[in-house]
Amino acid sequence: MASIRIPDDLVIRGGGKGRIVLVVLDGLGGLPHPDTGLTELETARTPVLDGLARRSSLGMLIPVRHGVTPGSGPAHLALFGYDPLETVIGRGALSALGVGFELRPGDVAARLNLATLDAEGRIVDRRGGRPSDGEGRRIVELLVRTVALPGVEYFLLHEKEHRAVLVLRGPGLEADLTDTDPQRTGVPPLDATAITPGSERAARVINEFLAKARAVLREEPILSGLLARGYARFEEIPSIETRFGLTGRVLAKYPMYRGVARLVGMEIPGIPGSDEEAVGLLEAGFTDADFHFLHCKAPDARGEDGDFAGKVAAIEAADAWMGRVAALEPDVLIVTGDHSTPAAMGIHSWHPVPVLLKSRWARPTGATFGEKEARQGDLGVIESRDLMTLALAHAGRLAKFGA
Amino acid sequence: MASIRIPDDLVIRGGGKGRIVLVVLDGLGGLPHPDTGLTELETARTPVLDGLARRSSLGMLIPVRHGVTPGSGPAHLALFGYDPLETVIGRGALSALGVGFELRPGDVAARLNLATLDAEGRIVDRRGGRPSDGEGRRIVELLVRTVALPGVEYFLLHEKEHRAVLVLRGPGLEADLTDTDPQRTGVPPLDATAITPGSERAARVINEFLAKARAVLREEPILSGLLARGYARFEEIPSIETRFGLTGRVLAKYPMYRGVARLVGMEIPGIPGSDEEAVGLLEAGFTDADFHFLHCKAPDARGEDGDFAGKVAAIEAADAWMGRVAALEPDVLIVTGDHSTPAAMGIHSWHPVPVLLKSRWARPTGATFGEKEARQGDLGVIESRDLMTLALAHAGRLAKFGA
Repeated sequence: MASIRIPDDLVIRGGGKGRIVLVVLDGLGGLPHPDTGLTELETARTPVLDGLARRSSLGMLIPVRHGVTPGSGPAHLALFGYDPLETVIGRGALSALGVGFELRPGDVAARLNLATLDAEGRIVDRRGGRPSDGEGRRIVELLVRTVALPGVEYFLLHEKEHRAVLVLRGPGLEADLTDTDPQRTGVPPLDATAITPGSERAARVINEFLAKARAVLREEPILSGLLARGYARFEEIPSIETRFGLTGRVLAKYPMYRGVARLVGMEIPGIPGSDEEAVGLLEAGFTDADFHFLHCKAPDARGEDGDFAGKVAAIEAADAWMGRVAALEPDVLIVTGDHSTPAAMGIHSWHPVPVLLKSRWARPTGATFGEKEARQGDLGVIESRDLMTLALAHAGRLAKFGA
Repeated sequence: MASIRIPDDLVIRGGGKGRIVLVVLDGLGGLPHPDTGLTELETARTPVLDGLARRSSLGMLIPVRHGVTPGSGPAHLALFGYDPLETVIGRGALSALGVGFELRPGDVAARLNLATLDAEGRIVDRRGGRPSDGEGRRIVELLVRTVALPGVEYFLLHEKEHRAVLVLRGPGLEADLTDTDPQRTGVPPLDATAITPGSERAARVINEFLAKARAVLREEPILSGLLARGYARFEEIPSIETRFGLTGRVLAKYPMYRGVARLVGMEIPGIPGSDEEAVGLLEAGFTDADFHFLHCKAPDARGEDGDFAGKVAAIEAADAWMGRVAALEPDVLIVTGDHSTPAAMGIHSWHPVPVLLKSRWARPTGATFGEKEARQGDLGVIESRDLMTLALAHAGRLAKFGA
C-alpha cells in the first residue's frame, strides 16, 4: 500500500495492545500576534496541555506537503495515516458519510446548497439566508416526496442548515462534472456539464433532478432552488482495521469529521452536542475500541473569523476538558491540529501544526505546548501522514523490521 | 509532473499575486572555524540579514538529498522547484544557455577548454594560461571563420577566458560520449568515444571538429588546441511560467547562472558587472516579473579558495547591498545558498544551507541568520526542491487542496 510508508507486515494484529487517543483541535496552528510575538496557542493558558507536553514527544506536523494548505478531508486522512494526495475523496462523499449514509462503491455524491432564486431563476442568495436545520430538513423531505428520477436510484440527505447531499446510485455513473453553482449572485445556476464522456449520464441525471426540484420549489419564498458542486464517485479505501489492525471510533459534533472517520472504518457511537459530550462518549466507550478520534471544531472556527482572542479562548476551553481525556490514561495520547488556521489570515494555511504524543516511551524535552517549543521536540518537523506509524510504535503495535 | 510534489492544479495563475525575490549567496553554508566554533556566516557581521531573519521563517535546505554534494546546475534547479535528480542538464547546455544561445531540443552541447599543446600534441596547460576574454574570443572567431563541418550545423561560442561551448545541431545526435580532456598534462588529448551506438555520429563529428581546429591552431603560441568535456543533449524542460505561473528574471554576473535560469524560462534583462549592478537591475525591473533570482558568486569563490576571512568578507559585502533588496518590499524575500562551500574544505559540500523566508505570513523565531539558529526555525530541515512550493504559498499563489 503506497500510502503507508512502512512494510504492511510490521503491523501487529490482535487484542491486548496499546490504545490510542487522537484529539484534533481543528486549525490549532497559528501565527504570532504582532503585539506579543506569540501565537494563539502560545498565548492561551493551557495548564493541562502544558503538563502533558512536559511528558510528551513534541514535534510539528506538515499537513500535506510543504506549502500546501489542506481542506479538512485531506488533512484528517493524513492524520489517520493515509497519503492525502493519493486518497482523494470528494466533499460530497464526506458529507454523505458524515450524515451516516452508507455509501457504496460507484455511488456518485454531490453537495447541494438550498438557495434563493428570483422569479427569473437568478440567484439571490447562494445559501438561502442560512435557514434553520428544521427549515432545511422540511425542503429536503418535500423534494424526496415529490421528485422522481426514472432509471436511477437517488438519495437526498439533509446535512445542516442550507446544506444537503444528493447521492446517485446506478451503473455507469462517473463524477467528472462542472459545478452548477456559479459562485455569485445575479445570474442563474449553470448546467452540470460532463468533462469526460463517462460522466455524461451523471450530468443528465443531475440536471434533470435540479430542474424538477426547481419546479417543486418555485413557490417557496426563500429556499426556491438548488446549487450543486463537489461531486465525487465513491471508491472504498482500506480501513484502519485492515491497514493498522485498529478498531476505531469517532467522537465529533460535525458531520464532515464523522464522514472522514467513517470512510476509514471508524464507528460512530453517537452524535455529541458539545465537546464535553464528545468526551463523555469517549469515556463511556473507552475500552470498546483501539483508536479514538475526538474532534474539536472551535479553534478553526474562531481562526476563520479572524478572532485571535476567540481562538485563544477556544483553546483554553479545550484545555478545560483535556484533563478528563488524560485521566483515561490511554497508552498513547496525541493532541494536535489537522492544519493551521491563523487568526491573522482568517483561513486555513500550510503552516506546520504543533503535536504532542504522550506515551510511556515518549522523549520529552520538558517544554510546554506551543509552536516554538514543539518544533524543538523529538519528532522534528514531519508530515502528518507519518503520525500514525509513530502512534502504532508507541502503542507497541509495530514489529521489529529485519533481524 | 513528478518533480513538483504537489498537484499541478493548485497553482493559481494570472496577475496580481505576490512577487518573490530569491537571493542566492553561492556556497553560503559553512563549517565552524576551529578557533571560534563559528561558521563563516555566523562570524560575519550581517546587521541587515539578521534584521530580516528576526522577521522570517528560518530553516535549512538540503541541496539535493542527504549527503549529496551538488554542482551549481542541479543546486539551482532544486531552488527553482525542480527535482535535480530527475532534471539532469549537462554543463555544456548550461554554458550555451548562459551566453544567450538559443538551444533547440536535440542540440548537443560540449564544453571546450582552449588549451596549450606542444609540437607533438601533448597537453602543456589545460587552461591555455588562463587567457584574457579578448584573446579567447579571437581564437573562437578564427575557428568559426576557418573550420567547416559538412553535414552538420555547428555553433562555437566563447564563454569566458579559456572556456567555450560547441553546439552541434542535426538529426541523430546523442551525447553519451567520453571526454577528450584527460585531466592531466604531458599526454595528448583523448578521442571522443561513443558509449552508446546512438552517440557514434556525435563522436565522429566532434573528433573531426577537434582535429580541424588543431590544424588551424597549430601555429598559435599559447592557445594551440581544444579539449572537450561535459556533453549534453538538450531537452526542453517546462518553464516556471508553465509550472508555477511565474514570469521570471535573472540578475547574475556569471553565464552559468544565467544559463540555468534561462533553462527554466527566466528572462535576462541585462548582464551586471557587479552585485551592486545586479541589485540595480532588480530595482529597475522589479515590477516587470513575478519572480526575481539574484545570484552572488563571491562567498562560493572565497570558500573554494579556502579563505575563511575572505568568505566572511564576501558575506558582509552582500549584507551591505541586501538592504536595497529588502527596501523593494517583495511579498516574499528568500535569502539562501545553492549549497555549502566551507572554507575548511575548499570545495562544494553536502551540508544543509541556511535559508530565511520573509513574508507577511512568516513564523519568526526571533533568531539571527546562521546555521545554528536556522535549523531551529519553522521550516525545519527540508530539501531545496520544496522551497518553491513554500514561496508560492507565502505569495498567495497556491489554492487550498481538497475540501
